[in-house]
Order: sequence, then C-alpha cells, then structure tokens
Amino acid sequence: MAIILLLSGPNLNLLGEREPQIYGSASLADCVSDASVAAEARGHLLEHLQSNHEGDLVDAIHRSRGRCAAIIVNPGAFSHYSYAIADALATFDGTKVELHLSNPSAREEWRRHSVTAAYVTGVVAGFGRAGYGLAVEAVCASLDTA
Amino acid sequence: MAIILLLSGPNLNLLGEREPQIYGSASLADCVSDASVAAEARGHLLEHLQSNHEGDLVDAIHRSRGRCAAIIVNPGAFSHYSYAIADALATFDGTKVELHLSNPSAREEWRRHSVTAAYVTGVVAGFGRAGYGLAVEAVCASLDTA
Amino acid sequence: MAIILLLSGPNLNLLGEREPQIYGSASLADCVSDASVAAEARGHLLEHLQSNHEGDLVDAIHRSRGRCAAIIVNPGAFSHYSYAIADALATFDGTKVELHLSNPSAREEWRRHSVTAAYVTGVVAGFGRAGYGLAVEAVCASLDTA
Amino acid sequence: MAIILLLSGPNLNLLGEREPQIYGSASLADCVSDASVAAEARGHLLEHLQSNHEGDLVDAIHRSRGRCAAIIVNPGAFSHYSYAIADALATFDGTKVELHLSNPSAREEWRRHSVTAAYVTGVVAGFGRAGYGLAVEAVCASLDTA
Amino acid sequence: MAIILLLSGPNLNLLGEREPQIYGSASLADCVSDASVAAEARGHLLEHLQSNHEGDLVDAIHRSRGRCAAIIVNPGAFSHYSYAIADALATFDGTKVELHLSNPSAREEWRRHSVTAAYVTGVVAGFGRAGYGLAVEAVCASLDTA
Amino acid sequence: MAIILLLSGPNLNLLGEREPQIYGSASLADCVSDASVAAEARGHLLEHLQSNHEGDLVDAIHRSRGRCAAIIVNPGAFSHYSYAIADALATFDGTKVELHLSNPSAREEWRRHSVTAAYVTGVVAGFGRAGYGLAVEAVCASLDTA
Amino acid sequence: MAIILLLSGPNLNLLGEREPQIYGSASLADCVSDASVAAEARGHLLEHLQSNHEGDLVDAIHRSRGRCAAIIVNPGAFSHYSYAIADALATFDGTKVELHLSNPSAREEWRRHSVTAAYVTGVVAGFGRAGYGLAVEAVCASLDTA
Amino acid sequence: MAIILLLSGPNLNLLGEREPQIYGSASLADCVSDASVAAEARGHLLEHLQSNHEGDLVDAIHRSRGRCAAIIVNPGAFSHYSYAIADALATFDGTKVELHLSNPSAREEWRRHSVTAAYVTGVVAGFGRAGYGLAVEAVCASLDTA
Amino acid sequence: MAIILLLSGPNLNLLGEREPQIYGSASLADCVSDASVAAEARGHLLEHLQSNHEGDLVDAIHRSRGRCAAIIVNPGAFSHYSYAIADALATFDGTKVELHLSNPSAREEWRRHSVTAAYVTGVVAGFGRAGYGLAVEAVCASLDTA
Amino acid sequence: MAIILLLSGPNLNLLGEREPQIYGSASLADCVSDASVAAEARGHLLEHLQSNHEGDLVDAIHRSRGRCAAIIVNPGAFSHYSYAIADALATFDGTKVELHLSNPSAREEWRRHSVTAAYVTGVVAGFGRAGYGLAVEAVCASLDTA
Amino acid sequence: MAIILLLSGPNLNLLGEREPQIYGSASLADCVSDASVAAEARGHLLEHLQSNHEGDLVDAIHRSRGRCAAIIVNPGAFSHYSYAIADALATFDGTKVELHLSNPSAREEWRRHSVTAAYVTGVVAGFGRAGYGLAVEAVCASLDTA
Amino acid sequence: MAIILLLSGPNLNLLGEREPQIYGSASLADCVSDASVAAEARGHLLEHLQSNHEGDLVDAIHRSRGRCAAIIVNPGAFSHYSYAIADALATFDGTKVELHLSNPSAREEWRRHSVTAAYVTGVVAGFGRAGYGLAVEAVCASLDTA
Repeated sequence: MAIILLLSGPNLNLLGEREPQIYGSASLADCVSDASVAAEARGHLLEHLQSNHEGDLVDAIHRSRGRCAAIIVNPGAFSHYSYAIADALATFDGTKVELHLSNPSAREEWRRHSVTAAYVTGVVAGFGRAGYGLAVEAVCASLDTA
Repeated sequence: MAIILLLSGPNLNLLGEREPQIYGSASLADCVSDASVAAEARGHLLEHLQSNHEGDLVDAIHRSRGRCAAIIVNPGAFSHYSYAIADALATFDGTKVELHLSNPSAREEWRRHSVTAAYVTGVVAGFGRAGYGLAVEAVCASLDTA
Repeated sequence: MAIILLLSGPNLNLLGEREPQIYGSASLADCVSDASVAAEARGHLLEHLQSNHEGDLVDAIHRSRGRCAAIIVNPGAFSHYSYAIADALATFDGTKVELHLSNPSAREEWRRHSVTAAYVTGVVAGFGRAGYGLAVEAVCASLDTA
Repeated sequence: MAIILLLSGPNLNLLGEREPQIYGSASLADCVSDASVAAEARGHLLEHLQSNHEGDLVDAIHRSRGRCAAIIVNPGAFSHYSYAIADALATFDGTKVELHLSNPSAREEWRRHSVTAAYVTGVVAGFGRAGYGLAVEAVCASLDTA
Repeated sequence: MAIILLLSGPNLNLLGEREPQIYGSASLADCVSDASVAAEARGHLLEHLQSNHEGDLVDAIHRSRGRCAAIIVNPGAFSHYSYAIADALATFDGTKVELHLSNPSAREEWRRHSVTAAYVTGVVAGFGRAGYGLAVEAVCASLDTA
Repeated sequence: MAIILLLSGPNLNLLGEREPQIYGSASLADCVSDASVAAEARGHLLEHLQSNHEGDLVDAIHRSRGRCAAIIVNPGAFSHYSYAIADALATFDGTKVELHLSNPSAREEWRRHSVTAAYVTGVVAGFGRAGYGLAVEAVCASLDTA
Repeated sequence: MAIILLLSGPNLNLLGEREPQIYGSASLADCVSDASVAAEARGHLLEHLQSNHEGDLVDAIHRSRGRCAAIIVNPGAFSHYSYAIADALATFDGTKVELHLSNPSAREEWRRHSVTAAYVTGVVAGFGRAGYGLAVEAVCASLDTA
Repeated sequence: MAIILLLSGPNLNLLGEREPQIYGSASLADCVSDASVAAEARGHLLEHLQSNHEGDLVDAIHRSRGRCAAIIVNPGAFSHYSYAIADALATFDGTKVELHLSNPSAREEWRRHSVTAAYVTGVVAGFGRAGYGLAVEAVCASLDTA
Repeated sequence: MAIILLLSGPNLNLLGEREPQIYGSASLADCVSDASVAAEARGHLLEHLQSNHEGDLVDAIHRSRGRCAAIIVNPGAFSHYSYAIADALATFDGTKVELHLSNPSAREEWRRHSVTAAYVTGVVAGFGRAGYGLAVEAVCASLDTA
Repeated sequence: MAIILLLSGPNLNLLGEREPQIYGSASLADCVSDASVAAEARGHLLEHLQSNHEGDLVDAIHRSRGRCAAIIVNPGAFSHYSYAIADALATFDGTKVELHLSNPSAREEWRRHSVTAAYVTGVVAGFGRAGYGLAVEAVCASLDTA
Repeated sequence: MAIILLLSGPNLNLLGEREPQIYGSASLADCVSDASVAAEARGHLLEHLQSNHEGDLVDAIHRSRGRCAAIIVNPGAFSHYSYAIADALATFDGTKVELHLSNPSAREEWRRHSVTAAYVTGVVAGFGRAGYGLAVEAVCASLDTA
Repeated sequence: MAIILLLSGPNLNLLGEREPQIYGSASLADCVSDASVAAEARGHLLEHLQSNHEGDLVDAIHRSRGRCAAIIVNPGAFSHYSYAIADALATFDGTKVELHLSNPSAREEWRRHSVTAAYVTGVVAGFGRAGYGLAVEAVCASLDTA
C-alpha cells in the first residue's frame, strides 16, 4: 500500500462555487473523495492538503519525500509562476502528476505556460472532476510498472 | 455503445523501436490494444488509424463526425504546427483528448507549445503506454456525464 | 477564354456544416458554383479542387503552370504555416488571389499572420460566400489589363 | 438607394504620381470614379473624402453613422497605427471594407500588421485600381443579403 | 480658484451611443457636467475640449501651460500610440490625470499599454461616468497639498 | 451599510519609512484612516488587512465573499506576478479597485504590467495617500448605481 | 537658388521653454533663424512650418514636391509612429534630412526607433541648436553634388 | 556497398524552371544524376524520391531504417516547419545531410530557421547543383570513418 | 559588532539531500555554520532564517531594518519572480548580498534572470558551500569601508 | 587650437572600392582630407586612425583622453555589437560624434540598432563623404559653445 | 591555378585538444593539410591563417581581394556576432564558404544564428574534419562553373 | 603552489579614473595588488594581463591551459557579446571566476545578460575593489576542495 499525496493550490477551496461554467459544480471535497475512492480501490491511501499559501505546498512536498509514493498536484495559478514549487517537485523522486480541472490551453494566454509542468511525470488537464480519478489511475499505472 | 476514434500521428508507427528511453518499449499495437481493451471493458468500440500524412488525419476526423462519440488523438509532431488538424478538431462536437506518450514540457522548447490543445476537451501527457487507458477512461467519464 | 483554378484547403469540404456563425451556411458546392457562374459570365472557365492534403494543393498548383491564367486559393489553415504552398504559388506566373470566407484579423491571434499572402497578387477576405464572386472579378480585372 | 462612403487616407491624393510601380498610374479621381460608376450601376450613391488628417477620417466616420449604409476605407499608412480610426470604425454598424491598392503582405515588415483590419467586415488588397470596383461589389453583396 | 482642463480624445463625442455595454449610457455632456459640478463644489473651474484630432489636444495642452492648474485627459485610443501627446503632457508642470471609462487591462491586448501613462501624475480607469468626479477629486487632493 | 475590505500587500506596512520620495510620508495607518473616514462619511464600514504573505490576501478575499460589498486592493509587488490573487479576485462578485500609491507606468519596466488589473473593476494609481479616499469614492459610486 | 523646406513637428513650438536641460534654451525662432542664415549664405531660401498636426506636415511635404529641392524635418515624437509622414517623405524625390535636437539613442527606450528614418537621405541628431545649421549644410552638400 | 537515400521535398520537381536565378537551370534529374554518379564512383547506390507530400517523405525515411546507410534530404520549405520530418530523421541512425540549393541565410527572414537542421549530422547549403555531389561526398566520408 | 542576517529561501532546507550533483553534499546547517564562523572570526554575529514562505522572508527583512548591518540572501527560486522580496530588499539600507550555490547562468533558461539582483549590492554565485564564507567576507569588506 | 580624433572602424580602409553604390566612390583618404581641411579652416587639428581591430579603437580613445577635445567615430560594423567601444566612449568627456556614410535605417534590419549611439553626443548619418565635413562642423559648434 | 584562402577563427588552434567529443580528435594542422591536399589535387593552392583576433581575419580577407579566388572561413564563435567579418566578406567578390566542424543547429541556442552566413556563397557544417575537403570541393565546383 | 591568472578586459586600465561613482577610486594596480596579496597569503601566485583586445584574452586563456590552476576574468564589456571568450573559457579545465566591480543587474538593460557566465564556475559581482580578494578566496576554496 502506497501513500499518494494530493495537493490543491490556491482558490481550489472554492470549487463548486467559483465559475462553475469553467470548473464544474463539484466541490473540492467531492473531487478529493473521488480520488480517495479510486486510490483505495487500487489498495492505496490518498492524503490531501489544500492551501492558498505557496509555502504550505512546498512544505508538504518536502514532508512527503520518502514517505509517499506519488504526488498529484493541482497547483492552480501557481502553475504559472511558482518556480519554488517546481524546485520542490524536482526534489521528489516518485511519480508526479500535474492536474487541472479546465484545459488551460483553451483559456487566457497566460494560462498556456506552466513552469511546473517540466518537473512532473505527466499532465492530466481538462476533464473536470473526472480528472481526479484519472490522475490516481495514472499514478497506479506508474506504481504497477515500477 | 459508442465508437471512439483513436488517431495516431506521424512516426508513431515506430513506437517501441524509436527512442525507447523517451517513448517506451511498447509497440503502437500494444498501445492500441490497451485502449481497445479499456474501451470494450466500458462497453465501447475503439477504432484506430495511424498516418504520417496530416491530410489523412483531417479526413478521418471529418468522417467521424456524427458517427463517433469521441476522438483520442496523439498528433505527434503535428501538435506543434498543424492548424489544419486544429481546425478539423474544432468541427467535431464530441469529447476530444490530446494524448502524448512523453511529457512535452520536459523536452525541447518547441514541444512546449501545442497548436491543437486549445481545440480539445483535455490533455493526457507523460504517462507512456498507460496514457492510452487513461485517455479511454477520460472519454468514458465524459460520455457517462453527457 | 482563360482557365481559373480555384483551390480549397483543409476543412473547407465541411462548409455550411462547420461553425456556420463564422463561415456561413452555404456549402462549398454553392461557393464553387458562384465562382463558376461569375467566371463563365466573363467568358472564362473555372476548375475546382478541394483537399485536406497540403501536397495535393502543391501538385495542383504545379499542374496549372502554363495551363491556367489565374489561381484563386482559399488555403484555410494552411495560410498560417504552409511555406510549401507559398513556394508553389511563387512558381506560378499568373494572377493569384488568396481568399478567406471570414476576416482572419478579427479572430484568434494565430490567424492574423499568413505565410502565403506575400506570394499572391492580392487578398479578398471577410465577405463570406460573396468573396468567391469577388475573387473571380479580381482575376478578370487583372486578365483584362494584362 | 444606399450611400456608400469612400474614405482615402494619407498620401492617396498623390495616386498616379507616387511610386507608380507600386500604386499604379491611375489618379485618385480615376479610382473614385470607378467606385462611383460601380455604385451607381448597383443603384447606390458613393461619397468620397480624402484627407491626410487622421481626425478628418474619424469625423467623417462619425458623420456617416445612421446616414450611410457602408464604408470603404483605404486608410493608407493609418492602417498600421491609428487605433483612433479602428475605434471609430467599431462605432459604425454597417458593412466596412478595408481597401489597399498594393498587397501589404508583400512589402515592408511594418505593413504586414493592420490595426484597423480587426474592426472591418472584410479586406480587399493588392488589385490596384480594380480594387475600387471590387470593394463596391463587396459592399453591394453585403447590402443585398442584409 | 484654479482652472482644470478636461480633454477628451477621439470617439468620445459618441459617448452614450457607442458600445454602451462598455462605455455606459451617459453622454459626454453628462460626464463633463459631473466633472464641472465636482470642480465647482471644490471652488475650481473646469474647461472642456473634445477632439478627434491629435494636434488639437496637443495645442490645448500647450495653451493651458501657466494658465491651468491641472489637466484631466481621457486620450481614448491616443493612449496607445500618441507620443506627441505624451511629449505635450511632459511640458505641463501641474497635476495630470489619465482617465479611462472602461478598464483597458480587461479588454483587447493592445489596450493594455499606454504610452501616455508614464507622463501623468496618476491614472483613474474603469469606473465609467463616476471616473469624471474621481478625477476631479484626484486633482483637488493634489492642489490642496501643493 | 456595506462592508468594504481594504487589502494591503507586501512592504506596505513600511509606508512612510520606505522610499518616501516615491510613496510619500504618510504611514499605512494614516492611509487606512483616510479610507475609513471616507467610508463612514458615506455610511459604509471599512475593514483592513495588511500582509506580506500572498496566501493571507487570497484567504481574506475568500472570506469576504458574500460578506463584503467591495474590495480595494493595493497588491504592491504582487500585482506583477500573483495569478493566485488574480484568480481570487475573479471569484469575488462585487466592485474591485486596484490601488497604487505611485504611478507604476512611470517607474521600472516590470511595474508596467499588472496581472491582477484584468480582474478588477477599475484602477486608481499615482495619487499617493489621496488615492485611498478616491478608491473609497470609486466604490461608493459603484454601490450607489448598483 | 533652391528652396529648402524646414518642418517642425509637435511640441517644437515650445522650444526653449520645454525641458531646456534636454532641448536647450534657444527658441524655435532662433533655430529657424540659424537655418535661414545658413541657407542664405549658400544662396538658398529656407521656408519653415511648425505644426502639432501630423496632417499639416503631410500636406506640406506634398506641396513641396517639385517646388522645393530639399526637406529638413524634425518630426519630434512623430518619428516614432507616423508611418503617414514616412510615406509622405517617400513621395519626395529630393534630399531629406531627419533632424533631432537631442540624441534619441540616449533617452527613453521608445525614442530609439524611428519609423521615418528609413525614408530620408540621412540623419543629424544630438547637436541641439547647432543641428539646424548642420542640416542645411548637409542639404547644400547634397545639392552641390547633384 | 551502401544505399544512400536522396529525398527531395516540395517544389523541387520544378527545378530548372522555377526561379532559375535562385535555384539554377539544372533540372532535378540533372541533380539526382550528379548524386548517383558520385555515389557509384564511391561504390554506393543512390535512391531518390521527390514528393510534395510531407507524409511521403516521413514514410520514406521510415522505410530506409536498417536498409539505407545514409539520407540526404533537401526538405525544401518543409525545413521551416515540418517537425514531423524532424522527428522522422531522429529515428534514423545513419548519416543525415540536409541539403539546400540556395543559401537560406541570404534570403527571406523565415528561411533562416530550419526545424530539421538540429536532427541531422550536417548541412550543405548554397552551392546549387554542385551541392548534390558534395552531399554524397559528405556521406561517404562519414561511411569511411564509421 | 554587527549583526548579519542570512536568509535561505525555498527548498534550501533540503540542502545535501537535493540534487547533490548540483547543490553539493553539505547540509544547510553546514553552510550556515561556515557563515557563522566566518562572521565571528570578523567580530560579527550571524543570524539565520530559512523558510519556504515568501512572506516570512519579507517579514524578516523588515525586522532587520535598523537592527542588522547586512543581509545575505539566497532566495532560491524566489530570485526569479518574487518582486515582493525585491521591494523588501530595496527598503533595507545596509549591504545586501545575493548568494547562489550553483551558477544559474549554466542551468535552465529561466534561472538566468533574477528579479532581485537589481536590488542588492552584489552577487556571489556558483561556488557551492564556499560561497557562504565568501558572502560573509563580501559583507565584512563592505562594513570595513563604510 | 583643439585636436579632433577621427576614428574609422573595420572595412573603412576599403572605401571607394567597397560597394560604391552604398558607400560612394571617395576613398578614406579623400574623406579624411575633407575632415582635416574642415578642421584646419576652423583652427583645429585632425588626427586619424583606421583599424579593423576593435582593441585599437579602444586604445586610441583612451590615449585621447585629456589630449583631444573631440572624437568623431565611424565605428562601421562595431556600432552594432561593440559594447567595449561604447564603454570606452563613455570614459571620454569631450564631444563625441558617431558618423556613418550610409543611412543604417534604410538597410538591413541589424544595422538599425547601434549600441554605441547612446554614448555619444550626436549622430551624423547618410550623407556619404559630405558627412566628414559635417561631423567636424558639429564638433566645432560644440567647442564654440563650450 | 587559383589561391584559396582558408581562415580559422578563435579557439580553432586548440582543435584536437578542445572538447574532442564535439570537434573531433584531428588537429587544425590535420584539417588544413586535408584542405591543402584537396586543393592541390584540383590544381589550386591553399593558404591558411588562424587567429583569435577578429581584426586579423578582417585584414586577411582584405588582403585576399583580387589575389585569391575563394575564401573558406570557419569563423568559430565570430559567426554569432562579428558583423565586421560579415562586412569584410561582403567586400570579397569570389566564392565564400562558411565552414563549421560541428552542427551549430544541434547545440546551444546562441549557435543557431550566424550573422556571417548571409554574406557567403554557401555553408558546410557538421561533418568534422571531412568538412575541410568538402569545402575545397565546393570552391572548386564553383570555380569550374565560373 | 598554484598559478592563478587574472584577466582584465577592455577599459579596465582606466580604473580609478573612469566613472568612479560606479567603479570606485582604486586603480587597476590597486585591485591587482589586492588579488596578489590574497593569493600569496594562500600560497599561490597571481599573474595579471589587461587588454582591450579580445584576441589577447583568448590567447592568454589558451596559454594558461595546463599551466594555471584557475582563471579570474573581469571581461568588462566583453561579457555581453564575446562568444569567443566564452568558447575559450570552455577549453580551460580549472576553476573559473567571472568578476565584475559593479552589479550589472542594477545598470543598463544590456548589462544584465552575460554570454560568458554560462562557461565559468561562478560569479562575484558588485563588491568593487573588494571583489578581487573575494575572487581569489573563491579560487582557493575551490583548489582546497579539489
């Protein structure tokens, strides 16, 4: 049994209330629940942390080193400028999935560039709430082949 | 039962032989088989076309209009310049997934920009062969909620 | 009597079905018919080829050398990257008209730059189906003064 | 019977004298006459104003609101920087045609970008004196379908 | 009692008629009246000039030197390219306020850069008709502390 | 009576001590007091939070949703890179004013671009301490017309 | 005896009063007088026009065609965006000198690029009032060798 | 005896007819013959394929894997945008020569950047018909030292 | 005796464990110890704070004003986007040294630009653990000459 | 009597032979002679050095410090990249004239930017051989007013 | 018998010792010898000069004018900034070959742009030591057809 | 005992005289002396060469190969364009320190980018004369750990 850390960046605590036409009507709890169920179905455990503070996410990534097998991170807006999170992800050896609810390529210009994406294993973006299950699947596929 | 069209762009016919350190050792047939199995497990049918010819992919997208419920496209290098495929994808109303074996953000600069990504529902990138199953799951999640 | 070659690029075969709020409800056949009628009214013959394959358009331009008096080309998305078509147009000595149904300057950023436009006599853009007749008129005006 | 306003921007008063290898040997009066004849043949009336003063063109566009059915504007060099004219065109509800004698895409780099083109219905460029008749035809086609 | 010069750039004469969803339904007279009332309430006199001609605005700025205590300028589209107005503003020693009805940062890309903003005391943008009163208040606050 | 939230970003706690030739000699308490007085004079209540921590500002914006009628935010340096605050502001439905003491357009190049400005109602910049009262006025004008 | 047209662009009427540390303390009349004296000493006649209106300068260039042997133009801020003046200069066959009092390369970034400089014979910049005499000398040298 | 594959991209079939001042008067057959003779003189066999279809070139590169010792490719305009051909070349382990008749650095700006050049062994450009023999020599030198 | 504040930005707490081939095998404690020893040898006192939270670093800089003689800051990834730290450094009057273990110029493109470097006295980069002693020496040299 | 140093950069030794349609048919000796005659007519002495070695020009500028009253430098191609010469010019307190025979703004793109121009008093460009006399006049005007 | 000048730029004297994995193990003497042998085999004479001084290469190009029939230049790093050498090459009328041992397109970004390449007949790059013979062949082919 | 080569680039011979507010009042001899004393105190020998000629610096780097243990280079303006020196530094295996008296990040835009910095071990910048001792210390620390 592996521990998968799910990290949610700024403004994701408002999921369901915030621009539902873009982010969907599910709450963050709904999404985390989906991810937990998917992880447990695969015999793994999912931990979750949401914060609007960049440093909290960096700290959490550090704490997961050696303890967690994978990180799924929806960095929210931090994707577009937080080199600190990028550097933190680089210090983590396991599977790393960058997850976005919406498809950043189809939105404002500044959302097209992710500074964190170069430091993860892969990306899942644009599938709304369903992305949470997919990200867990991606992690599990990786753990299985490891 | 829905039909899911899987499209593979240029050079993907060489999967398994071509730069396995980047693209993995599975053949395209292996990947397509994974996707087919996943689709069938969900009660859907997967069709596949690989071509090194941009026009073939455009034609296939056109033919799928009204007949297929979703398109999974790994445009290969066409991601980075084929506005013709981007325009073709825009004519298709169903779910559209852009799939990459490797994580383009972690490779050459020119792979960081996809001209097609703005015209799909979402993106799955960086999970190698496992991405094929994930893309089918992404489609199915979308079909279930439709 | 001169032969005018009308070339239609990728996705134009879907005219009338595809984003009618942008491209109008006329089919490609309607547009070609308008162009033919206009050409015949001026004593000329119009030939038409549509293809989603860049190479087909290059081939067609080559075949028209010495045989046709003018080319009207709606390159569709190829306008924005096909230097091969640009080079092909440069090999044709007659009048060349680049035709667009919509006004590319009023759409996505990437549609504002045409790599083919530097290699034609002139451009007609934004007048929808009526542009076909206008393009033929432009050709005829050029043939009359030649 | 509709009124069509033809606006000519800076330096167009020198047509015929100025770089005839680029702009042709016809005078502005010749071009305006062509446009008038074409308009009258279609039952419309053409008015013309040339000015080297940006503000005169803005004023004229304002005066045409509600009185004219269409504007044909050859903004000359103003195409490349006059956001004031762009804004003025945006206040006019009828058909708007941007007209150029030469093909800007085939000339100096700075002529490739038009700041006004995003605010017109369509563009006719590169057909010299014949463009005047084509622009009137474009307007008439638009009026007919309105 | 100080004189405050209010300058209105191109197309502002159409306020109330022009894109009311962006610029509001108040006329320029309404806005100027608001500013006058606000100025008089503070014991100052407001003068107003609107022109679609860049040179008129430059001339007016020159005439105000030594005679007016402050300039409020809504340069309209001139904000984005008129270095002549920027230079004119640099010659005026009093308080200078750049005023915009809409919020340029939330509109087209080209509206995000103002060439005049570096040469004024401050900017008030995005508050519609209410901005006129605010700009006068800004001027008065400055005059009081001078 | 409405609640107006005033947010002050990093380094604003040093107001009055920090580069007074740029930011003035008033302390943050002075500025907040001005804003409070102005709000109370209009029958509203002003709350204030200053933090050097981006996450604190995001949290505060979240807490104000549904409780406050307006936000006045001087994001300080966060204006230039905090997409997290930009996204947070987008989740707030009331009036939003971006406030700067100095005129960013007249300073270093990097201060000319605000990533938050596209997500507010309007901007007040360059009027020093007086800007606090102006921002409150801007909010009140907006509340009155709502 | 040749006629030399000296054109002065926007804000140059304020010479001597405006930023004397940059532009010097001589008035425009002083500068024009220097140029006239220099021209007469060489047997030529100097005419002068100053305007803050771009169109006036374009008109003046047109009127000088065939009548004047040379143009000396200090376009002021128009150097940096007036393609209309650039095009007008291109219609004039004689010697053309672009003159600047200050050295634009040593000032703000936007002054480093002149859109008119590509359309003149040569440039004299940075020598203050003395530049007027130098520009006349440059013209005379050109007339002598013509 | 090694097989050398010579690939000719779009518009090269018109060699000798097309802009001979740039590309020379030799036909493609002449050039291919030169290459064949050079190859045979060195004991090797040269195969040739010309196509205006990008996919044909990709297919041909694939077919040559394991069968040919080297590829000489004149991608024509494809050099400037075909990442598909770049990727195909990356799958070929032997010597790869990019060949151009003209010197792209001395022509239009867009010809200065080759997206394929990073994926070949070396480049021969600018020597017209003679380049064909030189490219074969380059291949042979490489084979000799392998 | 002066107090020197040493600040360590995000991820530096992992020094020794994190990419030792880049950052070396010494721990942060080792580095801080080196700096303390060097400071004490010069009769000064070194204080240290590490945080992954940008706001903590800003707060610490503020607290050091008037109390510390110098700041040595290794901002880690914050160097590349934290204008908040840049602004905080600008409020500190003493000597400021930006310190990097690796040589950012020899790594990813985004590490080549530091937004904080313009606001410090000087930079020491690339010397690994030895840089800590060098930075203290740089501070001491500055204090000696002050 | 003042000493004026005239410096000629790379390739200027070929003046008269090298691209006379651009640089004229006068030799460098002719140009230097013109400058000397002009200097002597004004009671000054002109020294000249030509070198194709950047370091020679830097050395010469250094040697002129305190000995020469002015420098006229035609840096040739060094204008476009030699920051070493720019820095050297910055160390010279007298009048400095950058001189070009041709008008760089009307030639290749790379000639439009001069890295040295920000460090001189003024520029004379485009007047061919006559520029040498003009540059001396510019220097003398400066010396007279000093 | 023609004289061919071979020029070697900075750091090429270290060939064989310097990064042999990039530049090969042959010394410059080996390469020059290859070129000489090739030239003599064709009845020509090869002269060689290596220098780390840009001016030496400019001087050598000048001296070769009228005396040598061709220049082969490996400008080394000068390719990327020496406009002085570019200008010098432009003064030479014979065949000019730019030669690189490695393939600059496959290395650091800054090596992809050559400022000299626009001023030569053609380029040979990427073939290591064998490039020397190829460059001589390229020259001979050119001399034969001249 | 190791030999440390100290290289000083263009204009550094004027240290103490040249812009002392930027570069300080110490002469180059003073700085070199500091470095020598520091080196000797550590048991090493310092050699120094200053030149305004890029080639001299390249030559000196070459001569130091195998003979010197480290290079300290203050490339002056060469930092910003001399790829030849960058390439030369790449051929030297020992410790390499880039040294600047001032902090280039706090000066003109063009000083922010160093083309040589990617090819050295580390950088010391902004500490004036004291930087010379620090650079020697940096070298010694490196030699001690080697």
